[in-house]
Amino acid sequence: MRTHLCGLIDESLIGQDVTLCGWVNTLRLQSHVAFVDLRDHEGLAQVVIERENDAAFAVAGELGYEFVVKVTGQVRKRLSANDKLRTGTVEVLADKVEILNAARDLPFALHESPNEDLRMTYRYLDMRRPEMQKMMRTRTALVRALRRYLDAAGFQDIETPILTKATPEGARDYLVPSRVHPGQFYALPQSPQLFKQILMMAGFDRYYQIARCFRDEDLRADRQPEFTQLDLEFAFVEERDVQDFVENLIRHVFREVREVELDAVFPRMTYEEAMRRFGSDKPDLRIPLELVDIADAVKHVEFKVFSGPANDPAGRVAALRVPGAAELSRKDIDGLTEYAAKYGAKGLAWLKVDDLAKGRDGINSPVAKFLDDAALAQVLTLTGAGTGDIVFFGAGAWKTVTDFMGALRIRLGRDRGMVENSWKPLWVTDFPMFEYDEEEKRFVALHHPFTAPKVDDIAELRANAGVAVSRGYDMVLNGNEIGGGSIRIHRPEMQSAVFDLLGIGEAEAEAKFGFLLKALRLGAPPHGGLAFGIDRIAALMAGTESIRDVIAFPKTTSAQDLMTDAPSQVSEPQLKELHVRVAAAEPAKA
Amino acid sequence: MRTHLCGLIDESLIGQDVTLCGWVNTLRLQSHVAFVDLRDHEGLAQVVIERENDAAFAVAGELGYEFVVKVTGQVRKRLSANDKLRTGTVEVLADKVEILNAARDLPFALHESPNEDLRMTYRYLDMRRPEMQKMMRTRTALVRALRRYLDAAGFQDIETPILTKATPEGARDYLVPSRVHPGQFYALPQSPQLFKQILMMAGFDRYYQIARCFRDEDLRADRQPEFTQLDLEFAFVEERDVQDFVENLIRHVFREVREVELDAVFPRMTYEEAMRRFGSDKPDLRIPLELVDIADAVKHVEFKVFSGPANDPAGRVAALRVPGAAELSRKDIDGLTEYAAKYGAKGLAWLKVDDLAKGRDGINSPVAKFLDDAALAQVLTLTGAGTGDIVFFGAGAWKTVTDFMGALRIRLGRDRGMVENSWKPLWVTDFPMFEYDEEEKRFVALHHPFTAPKVDDIAELRANAGVAVSRGYDMVLNGNEIGGGSIRIHRPEMQSAVFDLLGIGEAEAEAKFGFLLKALRLGAPPHGGLAFGIDRIAALMAGTESIRDVIAFPKTTSAQDLMTDAPSQVSEPQLKELHVRVAAAEPAKA
Repeated sequence: MRTHLCGLIDESLIGQDVTLCGWVNTLRLQSHVAFVDLRDHEGLAQVVIERENDAAFAVAGELGYEFVVKVTGQVRKRLSANDKLRTGTVEVLADKVEILNAARDLPFALHESPNEDLRMTYRYLDMRRPEMQKMMRTRTALVRALRRYLDAAGFQDIETPILTKATPEGARDYLVPSRVHPGQFYALPQSPQLFKQILMMAGFDRYYQIARCFRDEDLRADRQPEFTQLDLEFAFVEERDVQDFVENLIRHVFREVREVELDAVFPRMTYEEAMRRFGSDKPDLRIPLELVDIADAVKHVEFKVFSGPANDPAGRVAALRVPGAAELSRKDIDGLTEYAAKYGAKGLAWLKVDDLAKGRDGINSPVAKFLDDAALAQVLTLTGAGTGDIVFFGAGAWKTVTDFMGALRIRLGRDRGMVENSWKPLWVTDFPMFEYDEEEKRFVALHHPFTAPKVDDIAELRANAGVAVSRGYDMVLNGNEIGGGSIRIHRPEMQSAVFDLLGIGEAEAEAKFGFLLKALRLGAPPHGGLAFGIDRIAALMAGTESIRDVIAFPKTTSAQDLMTDAPSQVSEPQLKELHVRVAAAEPAKA
Repeated sequence: MRTHLCGLIDESLIGQDVTLCGWVNTLRLQSHVAFVDLRDHEGLAQVVIERENDAAFAVAGELGYEFVVKVTGQVRKRLSANDKLRTGTVEVLADKVEILNAARDLPFALHESPNEDLRMTYRYLDMRRPEMQKMMRTRTALVRALRRYLDAAGFQDIETPILTKATPEGARDYLVPSRVHPGQFYALPQSPQLFKQILMMAGFDRYYQIARCFRDEDLRADRQPEFTQLDLEFAFVEERDVQDFVENLIRHVFREVREVELDAVFPRMTYEEAMRRFGSDKPDLRIPLELVDIADAVKHVEFKVFSGPANDPAGRVAALRVPGAAELSRKDIDGLTEYAAKYGAKGLAWLKVDDLAKGRDGINSPVAKFLDDAALAQVLTLTGAGTGDIVFFGAGAWKTVTDFMGALRIRLGRDRGMVENSWKPLWVTDFPMFEYDEEEKRFVALHHPFTAPKVDDIAELRANAGVAVSRGYDMVLNGNEIGGGSIRIHRPEMQSAVFDLLGIGEAEAEAKFGFLLKALRLGAPPHGGLAFGIDRIAALMAGTESIRDVIAFPKTTSAQDLMTDAPSQVSEPQLKELHVRVAAAEPAKA
């Protein structure tokens, strides 16, 4: 249908006849000549249609933006080259112009930035925009580079089911009623976790899959009801085997796709260190700000807001120095206080060092008066605060202080342009095995219930469950958890003990995970692995904040596909066949 | 955890210490020595444990089949080599033996062929069998070869949604209730058909995806509720562009994966010819038998069973000669008659040529007496029947005769060992655009409603809808439809006309396919593509009849996963959140 692609014609074709197909990107009709920029996925070509060519010129008069046309003509040198265009030194003098399809009443022009609902409704128009084409290509390139590397390393790409059993791994399942088995349901997988473990028990040794996963969660801006992960699993490995391998994998894809050379060795940090220094288990190391614990300095002060938590083993008093930020206004600080409040802060104490040389007189702070000279001096020493700096303080329960001070660190780093333009990967390790859920009064798994603890001894785990550390690990990049994994439990007794500690009784464990327990008793090898969030890595690589820019047909935050209008109502007979009925809406609670 | 893989140790390692991990494949305990064949995904290694090594020998005493063990020891030359084993010239003299996991009360031994339910329930054991490992590897290799080729050809691998809108394409949808939108449902895609068309309208030019598809059908042995297809689409193409490309693709993967060189040019056959000569739209060309139309020869005979259909434009009288099969017994023929009856035959006339030279006296047939000499001679000439051959006859409605004679052809070809051991691909083209559904009294689409007709003129299509031919095409291999595709409708007026002819009214078209019609009006390029059935191609390549051998976790014919026990009941609160209730079972109709 075409001999060449629009974006690829060049001077080597001068004098040759070519046939191009594409979309009308721009159109200039003059009395004696028409100029059409024709666009395909490779780029633009200028087409010239002269009045002498009656038939073609008549067609030109009918054209509009985004019409699909086929043009045959001769390539010639352009009188004045357009440097901005790859094809800018040539043009096609049209011999024949044919409209393959019209485009009328465009809801928006391609060079506009319409609102996101409009983009989603007319996704086919939105994706024609060169920036969308480029971002989607980045994703394709990422997935291709991942596959290549894994194929070469002897991994087997194996598909696991989408229609599967409800296995509670934290989030809500999407359910699918069975027609053949009335009253029974499939669940869409939250991840292929158990299937990949079973594959290791089936002797596959090294497995991967670009796997679709589903979580029926209330969506935040960066979540989708269905998302894609690179799922990996290895038999007969320990932590470092997995980590070293995937570090090389990630370095490889950044090199291939972005021509970026990541650190030769990724830094490693325990969960405890990450929370202490950065107030986050996914620290953004591009921001050169750190939390400092000052409890020792303020244990003895009268000021209970500080000394209370400083003397409480479950408390924390942390300081965050921001260099050169003494210039922050009262209003700025009020804004930050409000922001920290969202993360649980009851207030935000601060201290500006107007002039370090002047001692206490050079300090501007509502809380300085509560600190004796020794305490003040120690705080200044510990934080390293100098003239022109501001120090923020957080005091209270350990987790709350850590969270809001971590959030504040990110916010200040961004607001003050302190985010380095670089790639900062790291490993976070030694996660707690369990978190105590105060509401449910029981332990919950920090990773998932199949993560192995560091201790091999079951009695020891039971005795110290509250402080037990798991064999889980996360890969973090620029403040995003891009991958998470663990060494799994491979002994049936340990798996049963962990279920028990999580409050999953024997009967429940058997009903939900019976097949896993059975498989563990029939020759399960030690194994471990990891899953990468493809949408997020693609977005990072494509340089966009939104994963929706690297998903062809994403859903809105209310889980709708605006283009096809899904979900939608279905017919009564369809539901009857599936043995379900829509439940009458219940009145909202008062 | 290991230094080498069991199946890869060789004489170059003699004298070296190695550590192997694997499963106990076989075990021979003697008074002074124990032999363990240790298995991993690469194969077997013989481990020798001598009594002098007290600790190791004690562990050997505890071992059983399928235990997972770690062995450290020295590689040495074997006294008597085992030719059947890749590692048969060496063995490992164990220094240390460690049990990593036990395997007790195995439901079956790996060398057994347990029934399929048992295989599915303990899929992790079943898949450890070397033949399953090999078949699954063939699938992996197929998918990898497909991707490589398509990546190199500039196709973009783009994921389309799994949670989507119900789009009736023939089969029943699996539905997913929405929690956020009470009373509304997503559907799992029967194929990414509309999304891939939209991608062409979005300017992607060439797309592929290894896509999971879902059909809630009553399952036959070779169907699965979820299956995998290679989905391809091209912008700005015509039939031959697609066909030539995918022919090369399929040739490439057979060469890569099976070292088989397929025909340099695949034969091409219209739907009409395939039905006429082979009684099937997916003819198995490995069987050298053909149907012959003999209506002209029997139009004038008294025998109404033949002359009736012979004179009816909607009838067919077909003959099938089977060389050398005059030896078939009455019982054999009764069996074949019963078989043909399943496909609609009311009876099966036959004619044996005992001795052609003897004329009518050399013919043994219950129907010969109804044929005058001219008719008999013509039948013999048309079928080419000679001494020792049998000819079967089918007479009646065109479709019925074609179906049962086609089925008979396959059955006889198999029974009589006439299936060539070869690969016979072909294209079937020129499918009818519509089939008339007698029950629903309306046209239904033979491919799907988005397939373009050969005629461009809407009035012409409307006038001759019953005989209109589509731009669809199937790739057939050894009697299997392995791929099907078409050039799609890209003009909105034509799409509306086809919907109309299919009895899909304007309101329904708008509700179900409004987004497609809208997209067609906003600059849709001509486009077409194809989808390959990956499960079937993998099964063919792996040399198995059952697609379940190339699916890691297949479902039974009643759509159950016996390993995880899905589908299963879910809790009331879960259903309540999804705004559905299980409908009370209704009493079966009398």
